Amino acid sequence: MQPEETAPYKRIGIVGGMGPYAGLDLVKKVFDQTVAARDQDHLDVILLSTPSVPDRTRFLLEGKGENPAHVIFQVLESLEASGAVVAGIPCNTAHSPRILDVVLRELTETQSTLRFVSIIEETIRHLRERFPNLRTVGVLSTTGTLRTKVYSDPLRRHGYHVIEPGEALQEECVQKAIYDTTYGIKAESNPVTAKARSDIERALSYLKDEGAEVVVLGCTELPLAISDPLMFGLPMIDPTLLLARALIRETHPEKLKPLGKT
Amino acid sequence: MQPEETAPYKRIGIVGGMGPYAGLDLVKKVFDQTVAARDQDHLDVILLSTPSVPDRTRFLLEGKGENPAHVIFQVLESLEASGAVVAGIPCNTAHSPRILDVVLRELTETQSTLRFVSIIEETIRHLRERFPNLRTVGVLSTTGTLRTKVYSDPLRRHGYHVIEPGEALQEECVQKAIYDTTYGIKAESNPVTAKARSDIERALSYLKDEGAEVVVLGCTELPLAISDPLMFGLPMIDPTLLLARALIRETHPEKLKPLGKT
Repeated sequence: MQPEETAPYKRIGIVGGMGPYAGLDLVKKVFDQTVAARDQDHLDVILLSTPSVPDRTRFLLEGKGENPAHVIFQVLESLEASGAVVAGIPCNTAHSPRILDVVLRELTETQSTLRFVSIIEETIRHLRERFPNLRTVGVLSTTGTLRTKVYSDPLRRHGYHVIEPGEALQEECVQKAIYDTTYGIKAESNPVTAKARSDIERALSYLKDEGAEVVVLGCTELPLAISDPLMFGLPMIDPTLLLARALIRETHPEKLKPLGKT
Repeated sequence: MQPEETAPYKRIGIVGGMGPYAGLDLVKKVFDQTVAARDQDHLDVILLSTPSVPDRTRFLLEGKGENPAHVIFQVLESLEASGAVVAGIPCNTAHSPRILDVVLRELTETQSTLRFVSIIEETIRHLRERFPNLRTVGVLSTTGTLRTKVYSDPLRRHGYHVIEPGEALQEECVQKAIYDTTYGIKAESNPVTAKARSDIERALSYLKDEGAEVVVLGCTELPLAISDPLMFGLPMIDPTLLLARALIRETHPEKLKPLGKT
């Protein structure tokens, strides 16, 4: 399908819709992190953004609705059928073992050859490489990600001390900044509302006071609100950016731009 | 594939990569123009962004390389195979009859049922509905779009007087603002360079002086540089926005937001 002048491409698959703008943010970061001066230099990306993935946090916390794993698996299957060789899911909550383990098992059972890149593993890899003396990691995420320990379990296994908001701050500030149907990022991200941003800042300030040395923006909606590399003097770790870079590294490492400051 | 709580969706296909950021801009505008408060309210969109489409302007002006129509057709076929029922191409130059007629013929020959929405027809429809007394239309585009009269022919057929830049202004300002590998939008769109923006402003100012009452930003890279609804007092017409709205209208008209000022 490619003309002579372009190198053979390896198609990158992206499971979008969780939320839709987070999916776009990942595609944009793949383009941004690629060395390219013309259309034909860019990477081959397929994004399937579907509203049919059930809400992840609702499933995890309330046990309501079907496991989002099944639709996520179907999207991955569809991406593979369309030629994707590697894929990522720009939704941290979907990486909860209760969801992701089911997805990965279905991929294995169907003998899929799609390579899956985990946003969680890439984030931890980055922390280890970039901050060798790091001890205390702050994490902001959905309540679903927090309660099912999507970040805290593997971070602790790697020896980090993990700080997350207490229950009231989590529910009133972080979860609502993401989900509130009036001012939350999922409802209003163009631009993000002042209330969502200031509530997230309140939580960041708490993490700093508790000793966090860096903060992982562990919900793909959060980097839509916080694009600053530093907040309150702390490096903001953007897992979407790290997933984008990993997808390039896994397909066309020669086209990966050098990493910036963060 | 959809859970009970969501309405059956009609998948929107987008032929991306011409350029990559213009493809993203269209997907973003589909999301922006949709009435939605949560992930499950959004529309189902598949974007295939491939670097393998040969350059459209080069084919049209120099007769070099294969006709981009063949790869564009293959992408449309792939989108249809992935469930798309309607599709758009966020590249005005690809709507040149020498390219698009071949694509549409291949779709007919293969008995495709994919509905194709033309960015050109949607732009003219908008001008007729929104500006009933309009006489003189300015158009900025690539040299390929200009020379093959992608906008000027149908606009004249509808009775409009069309103003486009003269040869020197077109080559030095407009074409280079899009294509230059150092400062052009295809090389640097995040953010667009000051030189690209000021060169486009020079061309806009010329169109105003020549009597244009509105200006069609007739290359999907241009709205990445000019997001202002008015420039020099003239309404800026964004075909990407109009294509986004048409794709919603063709699939889920009940979810289309009311049109803003432009």
